[in-house]
Amino acid sequence: MGKPFLPNTSHASTWIWYPGDFEIWLSNKMQVRRTEREAVFPPLWQYYSPYPLITFQTEVDIPEEDEVKIYSEGTFQLLVDDVQIYGVPESITIPSGKHKISFKVYNQEVLPAIYVDGKYVKSNETWIVTNEDKLWIDETGKAQQSGTPWVPVGSWNFNSPENKPSEFRLTTEPWNAKKTEKVGTGELVDFGKETFGYIKIHGLKGKGKLSLYYGESREEALDSAKCETLDYLHFDGNQPETYTHDKSKAFRYVQVQADATVEYDSISMLYEYLPLEYRGAFKSSDEVLNKIWDVSAYTMHLTTREFFIDGIKRDRWVWSGDAYQSYLMNYYLFFDSSSVERTLLALRGKDPVTAHVNIIMDYSFYWFVGIYDYYLYTGDTAFIKTFYPRMKSLMEFCLGRRNENGFLEPLDGDWVFIDWADGLPKKGEVSFEQMLLARSLEAMAVSAEIAGENEDQKQYQELADDLKEKLFDVFWDEEEDVMKHQRIDGEMQDIVTKYANMFGIFFNYFNEEQKESVKNKVLLNDDILQITTPYMRFYELEALCAMGEQKFVLDEIRDYWGGMLELGATSFWEKYDPKQSGGEHLEMYGRPYGKSLCHAWGASPIYLFGKYYLGVEPTAPGYSEYVVKPNLGGLKWIEGKVPTPNGSVDVYCSTDEIKVKASEGEGTLIIHSISKPEINLVDIKSLGSNKYEIKIKPNTQYSIQYKAL
Amino acid sequence: MGKPFLPNTSHASTWIWYPGDFEIWLSNKMQVRRTEREAVFPPLWQYYSPYPLITFQTEVDIPEEDEVKIYSEGTFQLLVDDVQIYGVPESITIPSGKHKISFKVYNQEVLPAIYVDGKYVKSNETWIVTNEDKLWIDETGKAQQSGTPWVPVGSWNFNSPENKPSEFRLTTEPWNAKKTEKVGTGELVDFGKETFGYIKIHGLKGKGKLSLYYGESREEALDSAKCETLDYLHFDGNQPETYTHDKSKAFRYVQVQADATVEYDSISMLYEYLPLEYRGAFKSSDEVLNKIWDVSAYTMHLTTREFFIDGIKRDRWVWSGDAYQSYLMNYYLFFDSSSVERTLLALRGKDPVTAHVNIIMDYSFYWFVGIYDYYLYTGDTAFIKTFYPRMKSLMEFCLGRRNENGFLEPLDGDWVFIDWADGLPKKGEVSFEQMLLARSLEAMAVSAEIAGENEDQKQYQELADDLKEKLFDVFWDEEEDVMKHQRIDGEMQDIVTKYANMFGIFFNYFNEEQKESVKNKVLLNDDILQITTPYMRFYELEALCAMGEQKFVLDEIRDYWGGMLELGATSFWEKYDPKQSGGEHLEMYGRPYGKSLCHAWGASPIYLFGKYYLGVEPTAPGYSEYVVKPNLGGLKWIEGKVPTPNGSVDVYCSTDEIKVKASEGEGTLIIHSISKPEINLVDIKSLGSNKYEIKIKPNTQYSIQYKAL
Repeated sequence: MGKPFLPNTSHASTWIWYPGDFEIWLSNKMQVRRTEREAVFPPLWQYYSPYPLITFQTEVDIPEEDEVKIYSEGTFQLLVDDVQIYGVPESITIPSGKHKISFKVYNQEVLPAIYVDGKYVKSNETWIVTNEDKLWIDETGKAQQSGTPWVPVGSWNFNSPENKPSEFRLTTEPWNAKKTEKVGTGELVDFGKETFGYIKIHGLKGKGKLSLYYGESREEALDSAKCETLDYLHFDGNQPETYTHDKSKAFRYVQVQADATVEYDSISMLYEYLPLEYRGAFKSSDEVLNKIWDVSAYTMHLTTREFFIDGIKRDRWVWSGDAYQSYLMNYYLFFDSSSVERTLLALRGKDPVTAHVNIIMDYSFYWFVGIYDYYLYTGDTAFIKTFYPRMKSLMEFCLGRRNENGFLEPLDGDWVFIDWADGLPKKGEVSFEQMLLARSLEAMAVSAEIAGENEDQKQYQELADDLKEKLFDVFWDEEEDVMKHQRIDGEMQDIVTKYANMFGIFFNYFNEEQKESVKNKVLLNDDILQITTPYMRFYELEALCAMGEQKFVLDEIRDYWGGMLELGATSFWEKYDPKQSGGEHLEMYGRPYGKSLCHAWGASPIYLFGKYYLGVEPTAPGYSEYVVKPNLGGLKWIEGKVPTPNGSVDVYCSTDEIKVKASEGEGTLIIHSISKPEINLVDIKSLGSNKYEIKIKPNTQYSIQYKAL
Repeated sequence: MGKPFLPNTSHASTWIWYPGDFEIWLSNKMQVRRTEREAVFPPLWQYYSPYPLITFQTEVDIPEEDEVKIYSEGTFQLLVDDVQIYGVPESITIPSGKHKISFKVYNQEVLPAIYVDGKYVKSNETWIVTNEDKLWIDETGKAQQSGTPWVPVGSWNFNSPENKPSEFRLTTEPWNAKKTEKVGTGELVDFGKETFGYIKIHGLKGKGKLSLYYGESREEALDSAKCETLDYLHFDGNQPETYTHDKSKAFRYVQVQADATVEYDSISMLYEYLPLEYRGAFKSSDEVLNKIWDVSAYTMHLTTREFFIDGIKRDRWVWSGDAYQSYLMNYYLFFDSSSVERTLLALRGKDPVTAHVNIIMDYSFYWFVGIYDYYLYTGDTAFIKTFYPRMKSLMEFCLGRRNENGFLEPLDGDWVFIDWADGLPKKGEVSFEQMLLARSLEAMAVSAEIAGENEDQKQYQELADDLKEKLFDVFWDEEEDVMKHQRIDGEMQDIVTKYANMFGIFFNYFNEEQKESVKNKVLLNDDILQITTPYMRFYELEALCAMGEQKFVLDEIRDYWGGMLELGATSFWEKYDPKQSGGEHLEMYGRPYGKSLCHAWGASPIYLFGKYYLGVEPTAPGYSEYVVKPNLGGLKWIEGKVPTPNGSVDVYCSTDEIKVKASEGEGTLIIHSISKPEINLVDIKSLGSNKYEIKIKPNTQYSIQYKAL
């Protein structure tokens, strides 16, 4: 698996930059790597840039003279105690005592970054940085500085001078082909499962052209005229014998066709990945579900790269709605905070805000809710404190687009996405969008409080409360007890869809009576527009789980994800419709291989298994408090691990025994049992209706005998 | 002089980019080239960046198939009629008929730019560009585009494929030294006058170090310990025999000291400059004034580079207050519109606005007034139409900082500069700043009208009117009939300075009675804080000229600028105080050679001679109407040329004859004469008080006999 990429938290020296700028730079670079038959295919939304000129600063108080080495990406000006040091030195001696050290670094091409390393003076996350010095000279001739917007620096894991941010690369390892077969004068190479990386050619000789036709499916790789990605390599005879292509692709199969003048021995690949540890785990008495979890984890790993991307063949982009699900899955698999932060920053860019995130209205809202969840799962307040201004400016943009009723409806340039579903109405005031805005306002209220912006907190909470009230006044159908979909020009449309209705359940916006009604009249109603993307299946199944329908949901998972496995899937797809057959499964967007066969949103069983079967979720920030509500969903046994910031919650559950052990936090285990559960020396509280509660302390193994309902 | 850099206006192919982005990129690169004893010295204000991903678009209707060559800075996606073309082609065949052609270009390192060249399809200023496609997919699956902020492309004079924006360089030509003399084991090389460029070493051999100590003065070059700029060159023996250094400097003298192991034959230089034509001219019966004009023109040429910069040794930066004077001088020397546009764009950067231009309050205002003047002199409305949104966002920033009285006083991060003058009070409400804001609001009202923003026009005009009224209510001293300097916390300060008083004259904010009072009680009053920078001398002398004090002003010019010439100046200085002597003339900012000896604001005689002696100025945009009011200021004769957009106004004036010939526009010649002037076949209108008026038609030579007062 390689060494995990862990952030530097030890106060040792590390490369530092303007917070968010590395992520903007890297996402620009990464997202433009998508190609369609050799054509570059950049994202549809605006690119931002790092600040090309910034000032890093620290104040030190050191016991003795310190010889400090300086490494920089970009040329710089160095000031010690406000006095410019001549030249562009490679090291400097800082005398003992208190000193202010400033580096003003310029780098237009990549991004300004420095690495400073002495015995005492070290560049790390305690430094501050600004893009505007705001230095000026007063009437007495003295230099003044005021209004300078200092912020904490950004950093990740670039912990040595030679490990420069500008040279960031994911990890690679060699993979051999599993099988090859002749195809005309060339061959078809099969790597056995979906993968991502760089083709290697061994024993390469001669001059001429060699064509690579990639396929996530065998059909695609064999269809040189229609496959989505390909590379034409031209060799002049001076290439190395072992040639590694410099452009990465997603594939399982590669068709290789070479001119007669070009020879080679074999094809392999360099698998490229982000080295992360699988900190979550899941096993059960059902092998199909175990396979589904494994393939979900692999799908998730393939799409967890520089950022959480949607799919590895297509789009190779960072989409906020897709990423939001990756954040949630991540909390049950890698618990890699850096990947969440990088993705949130890449999505947000900078000011001014002139469009929704990814230009999609719902995707702005997922960005806010993603930050709320990040805080809940990790307990990290630093991210919110640093980036609250960017949260606020995006929210101001959103609020500025409300209509006279205080609702959002699409204006010029606003894409209302919701889901890929034929004929889904998206015009006018859509209840789903208002509900997401309400949740976003709640996230803003919490964030404002963390950022110490108490006036903002009050304002956002009021706005959230008002909007929720209005949402029910307008869209809740008191007769039918369901939420309507849409109002256009003041006319309520007679349409009910699943979207707002399922979110209303797990957002806890509905009361118990409303939830029951929605479950029966909407979620389990075949006359309502069906969901065919794993994307919205995620929320549909989550809503059903939240309503205690774990058994029903397991059947759905076995059918839906199991259905893909039966068709030979080695990673989960962008879309799956069991009613389709043959090549139809590969089509999308009117193209025969348009569908992505490795899409992050296909990996939701990771999240559902962890949160609704192992039953673990935080109830206070960073798992300082959490609940465990194991639910077998009809299985004989389940066992697994849910990662927490500094450890995990380990759960085993069969029909007569539950075992729990946690590394941290105050846990509450909720057990449904026909008889009172049994465990030595531990208090069991009865909650009535066959429900019992046990408090879980850290680092203690709890084994409880009980009797499943 | 080299071939002038003229903008492309022929609709032929040229490199195109996002408007303003080339200027931002180039100014970032240029301004960080300032060094202080080998230390990089970047500007004090924020850097912006080009958009790294943009879409160029054109619609064509062509009579036959067109084979179109494509050149790009950055990788691109090409769409013809919304259909992606595979690969990254070097040329494409466009069929006859109507077509939409789009290039989406990515370039993070430099700036995205393209050059497209067919028989019919050519990249030029008719194309449009956006940084946000805002493409999205509607519920029927169709791609939609709305709210896309299209703007006209930017371009300059990159009129061939190989002449790429990213490789922009000023012109150079070889210059030989005028004199050399031994200094220790080295030598002092004198190029005879202030210059700028790259040192060349001829016949270079050996290994070791060679030091270059630059001096705008002989003293500076000889003082290797204190000179402001230097280069240490290290040779390994493999360097070419003729070595050209890659870092440019400002100097007249260079002291060269080489290790005994390094030999060379001689030192020369590559003079670097922007190739512009001197379209303005001035000669008179006074040789000192002629020399002053010549040295002013040279000073202006040295500081007119990638942009109008302040000084060539220091700061090598683009300062709005300094540039504002360069714009005005430019209209009387080069009339190079591109240089004005480039400088305005470099200064403004992009959104969001988080500080004043150069972080100086007054410098924001000069930016607005500079645009107004640009429109008046050139008649160009395209610049305002394209960049009105950037004008508006800067003005919104300024207006957002007003206090409860509607005045601006410095908040955190605001530098109030006004002038370098010891003890000049700058706190609280300063009348000068309010007056500049009023003028800026007037510029916004005119610009809003040009941009078709009629609501804005009304609002800005009202704000301007209100502010002017308040300015007089609060700061005009009815008893003394002068404008006071400052109010702090509601307390009027008993201070009168020249600044607002002189601007009130040539802004025409004072009535005739007020002007007379101000002239006598402030401008000609030795008890008022004296002006010692050519920067504010510019306005002081302009105000006096506007009051008809041409004779007095000529004496001042002879003293002040003549004084610098007597001290051996070959370009005009940042500051000159006749009371100083010897090395004091070189000092500034507490450094022995801190003063810039070639500063744009030292060149104001160009402007004064053209506008107030030749007497030519536009009275309607682009010289569609103008006046000529020759004024001898006591000289026997003057003659010269003032450039207009497409030609010039040529003027000769002696005590008994005036000759005028103009290329364009409707001119009004105003003559002061004891007797009625005489000219055949032309109407002369008497205006009373020995004043006469003659209408000037284009391309006609007018020779008038008259008798000077």
